[in-house]
Amino acid sequence: MTKNPAEKKAGFFVCILTVVNSSANLYIQLLLKPPAKQNVSLAYESDTIAAIATPEGEGGISVVRISGDGAMSIAAGGFRGATTIDKMSSHTAHYGRFVDEQGKTIDNVVALVFRRPNSYTGEDTVELSCHGGRYLTKRILEATLRLGARAAQAGEFTKRAFLNGRIDLAQAEAVADLIHARSERAHQSSLAQLNGVLSDRISLVRERLVESISLLELELDFAEEGYRFTEKERVAGQLKSTVSQINDLLTTYSVGKIYRDGVKVALAGAPNVGKSSLLNALLQEDRAIVTEIPGTTRDIIEESISLGGLLFDLIDTAGIRETEDLVEREGVRRAEERLSNCDILVLMLDGTRAVGAEEVAAISRLTNAVEQRGASCVFVLNKIDIMEPERNPVLDVEHITRRHDVVEISARTHQGLESLKELLVRKALRDMPSTSEGGITITNARHFSALKRTADSLGLALETLECGKSGEFVAVDLRAGLDALGEIVGATSTDDILNSIFSRFCIGK
Amino acid sequence: MTKNPAEKKAGFFVCILTVVNSSANLYIQLLLKPPAKQNVSLAYESDTIAAIATPEGEGGISVVRISGDGAMSIAAGGFRGATTIDKMSSHTAHYGRFVDEQGKTIDNVVALVFRRPNSYTGEDTVELSCHGGRYLTKRILEATLRLGARAAQAGEFTKRAFLNGRIDLAQAEAVADLIHARSERAHQSSLAQLNGVLSDRISLVRERLVESISLLELELDFAEEGYRFTEKERVAGQLKSTVSQINDLLTTYSVGKIYRDGVKVALAGAPNVGKSSLLNALLQEDRAIVTEIPGTTRDIIEESISLGGLLFDLIDTAGIRETEDLVEREGVRRAEERLSNCDILVLMLDGTRAVGAEEVAAISRLTNAVEQRGASCVFVLNKIDIMEPERNPVLDVEHITRRHDVVEISARTHQGLESLKELLVRKALRDMPSTSEGGITITNARHFSALKRTADSLGLALETLECGKSGEFVAVDLRAGLDALGEIVGATSTDDILNSIFSRFCIGK
Repeated sequence: MTKNPAEKKAGFFVCILTVVNSSANLYIQLLLKPPAKQNVSLAYESDTIAAIATPEGEGGISVVRISGDGAMSIAAGGFRGATTIDKMSSHTAHYGRFVDEQGKTIDNVVALVFRRPNSYTGEDTVELSCHGGRYLTKRILEATLRLGARAAQAGEFTKRAFLNGRIDLAQAEAVADLIHARSERAHQSSLAQLNGVLSDRISLVRERLVESISLLELELDFAEEGYRFTEKERVAGQLKSTVSQINDLLTTYSVGKIYRDGVKVALAGAPNVGKSSLLNALLQEDRAIVTEIPGTTRDIIEESISLGGLLFDLIDTAGIRETEDLVEREGVRRAEERLSNCDILVLMLDGTRAVGAEEVAAISRLTNAVEQRGASCVFVLNKIDIMEPERNPVLDVEHITRRHDVVEISARTHQGLESLKELLVRKALRDMPSTSEGGITITNARHFSALKRTADSLGLALETLECGKSGEFVAVDLRAGLDALGEIVGATSTDDILNSIFSRFCIGK
Repeated sequence: MTKNPAEKKAGFFVCILTVVNSSANLYIQLLLKPPAKQNVSLAYESDTIAAIATPEGEGGISVVRISGDGAMSIAAGGFRGATTIDKMSSHTAHYGRFVDEQGKTIDNVVALVFRRPNSYTGEDTVELSCHGGRYLTKRILEATLRLGARAAQAGEFTKRAFLNGRIDLAQAEAVADLIHARSERAHQSSLAQLNGVLSDRISLVRERLVESISLLELELDFAEEGYRFTEKERVAGQLKSTVSQINDLLTTYSVGKIYRDGVKVALAGAPNVGKSSLLNALLQEDRAIVTEIPGTTRDIIEESISLGGLLFDLIDTAGIRETEDLVEREGVRRAEERLSNCDILVLMLDGTRAVGAEEVAAISRLTNAVEQRGASCVFVLNKIDIMEPERNPVLDVEHITRRHDVVEISARTHQGLESLKELLVRKALRDMPSTSEGGITITNARHFSALKRTADSLGLALETLECGKSGEFVAVDLRAGLDALGEIVGATSTDDILNSIFSRFCIGK
């Protein structure tokens, strides 16, 4: 075989096609995308499910979604209109009434029909749009359940889309991320993932890996016939390149995590230092579209702002206080602990006031705690519009600030605000690459972990290979790596993995 | 003219058709339904509006609705799919992407097209279904706004449906009621109203009234020519029948109000009387589907239960306590004031404990306050499973209970619970008729007020008529009655009325 890539690939295929009994099967078996049949063990139930697909609450419209083999007949059981459900073409909407089992109208609805496989789940699907009331929407859902549907579990529509091979697991996860996205970056990275950018890259890496394994297996098959393994360097080269690609992806995670989860910023400073003024100044210009995070148990988020496409959650803190009281001190200690538990600590100094000894000590404790956690500190010197330069309080804490950035601002006049914003974005991204080659960002801890395990296994395989051990030993690690990689797209997933992923979803998705 | 109704009507039409110059115009002018042209003064703007039509929050699907002359071109500006918006037939759904002005995808969407006049608003409408995330849904809405749509005001889609003559005002109001409905009765009455049951009746009454006015005007037109008014008895008969029909409708309001707003039940009793046990027993069997009432400033509702299709909101109360403390007494007084401000006060007695003098006094104060307000009291004797009958504490307050119903229960064994529920429903409905002839229930204070004013005006007209005064005087009152009646369906509405009605709506409806 030559070193020309195209010929190499052609040669490789010739090779595996001649070794039909093992490698070809292996290749196919290893690379297979996750279609329904492969995952038939993964709790795919073909019964018909129904749920309220729109957010809970009151609004103009709510949608009850029915999906499964019985979707059409169940919808037909309640729908009364000029056209019957069985006569509706796919992707058409029809006005009518939805009635309960006594024939009593529950609401006037629009039935939108999607015939399999051209639906979100790949199954027959009917979406009933009704008035957006809580009571009547639940009444319509209940009617579909009495007509034979089962209440869908969290994420079950998307799970079916996955099990039916409409999307892979990384894409399914992207749906949840997209729904929970609260910033431009979170939105864009999850959308890219939904549209297969990550999946395509994983597929490529898997193909390369399968190629390496096939080469190894080839040598094993022919070993007893006196065929010697001569492709060691080629396999080693392939593996190194694959590991490098994976590492390239892995480095994007520290930024990807920030994309997805946002940046936790704690604002600390003595009373009257101007924390509220700064907060207001920032909010006035950059208040995030979405500030609420319902149902989380995170710190109380005072406000969220959007900078550089990232979401910055500003944490409510007690601030730095000086106290002699022992009980009060315990409170201060706890407040400081909470303050240090952030991605960025913003320490504010009042340009018109010297920093007291107690305050210096508190700042020192806080910065140490934050640095130990590997998070960032930023000093903000406020009130520079009325500060006397010779009495700059930064001088009081110079032994600390010299390790950190200091931004001079006036929350009142907004002077320096842009510099502060730029610094916050830079600190959040930590000069780390935000995308790998091909514009991919890893945002998901599960993907990071799977990629890490893949890299580790391939590393082991390389070591074994370079020790000159038999291909069998190398193949064991390569297969482990391939399995770990396959978890990302769901080619190798257990029920447990799936359940844990889809339980993150809301019901109705 | 004969007394045969059909001939009478025919004759009547001949009559007004011959008097073209006044009565025919009048008839048409009075009866005209509320089409766009008539209401063109009522702030109808033909610009294109957009809003998130689904409830706010996270879910599987959210819908951004665009309506107006520019809906198609605005949707086309952002939609990228296999079919372009202008080629889509009405009532068809198409998968594609929605992009921002830089061509960057915001989300994968399904565009559902409704071409005028076959849409909710009667205008060209596009509904974009996207993933149900807060951030991305707002991004799509913002994109439509940048493409030229205006953010819709609360209820503006429904207001346009009204102004375009798709529905009348009573039906428009029913949409809001339907969305806010929290019980079967509220749901059914608002649905009936949406489907025109009330509007049809109002139309009939209006026609009768117009007939009476026309007869009067006829006499006035011919008076100068020596034509004598000879139809006095006929007009009087018609008016009496109309007033009777209106009164029939008016009597349904006391129940209709309960249908729509639910029943406020205050649970009072000494500590340990078993209030929580009773609450739990009721909730266990009849917890309402929907208990939250977001955004209201009403009393804190502990829980809601659904009995006989009605919603019973159980109000959190401080309970009855005995105290000597003056300050504490003020607190008790206020708690009692809140207790008495309910539709039904449930006073619980402990079957194993005598009622103390202080408690008797409190019960007396409470029942008096409730009776003065015209609300109901129900006594519940709890713990009858372990009560010694000869020491029945009801005897301690017999002078009060003899005016009220007493139900004996055991919250522990659920004995007597059904009787209590039946009594609560009976007290809520107060033996009042729930529907008029034709199955109509008036649930809306605005409709009640308009009907009341109509009845009053017709009453005045009848008096004037019977005094033998000239038809001119009678006609003034009849026209006032007709105007009041027309307010219900929006035939005679001012901008103020409309604004106050549609501001009750959520945005996106």
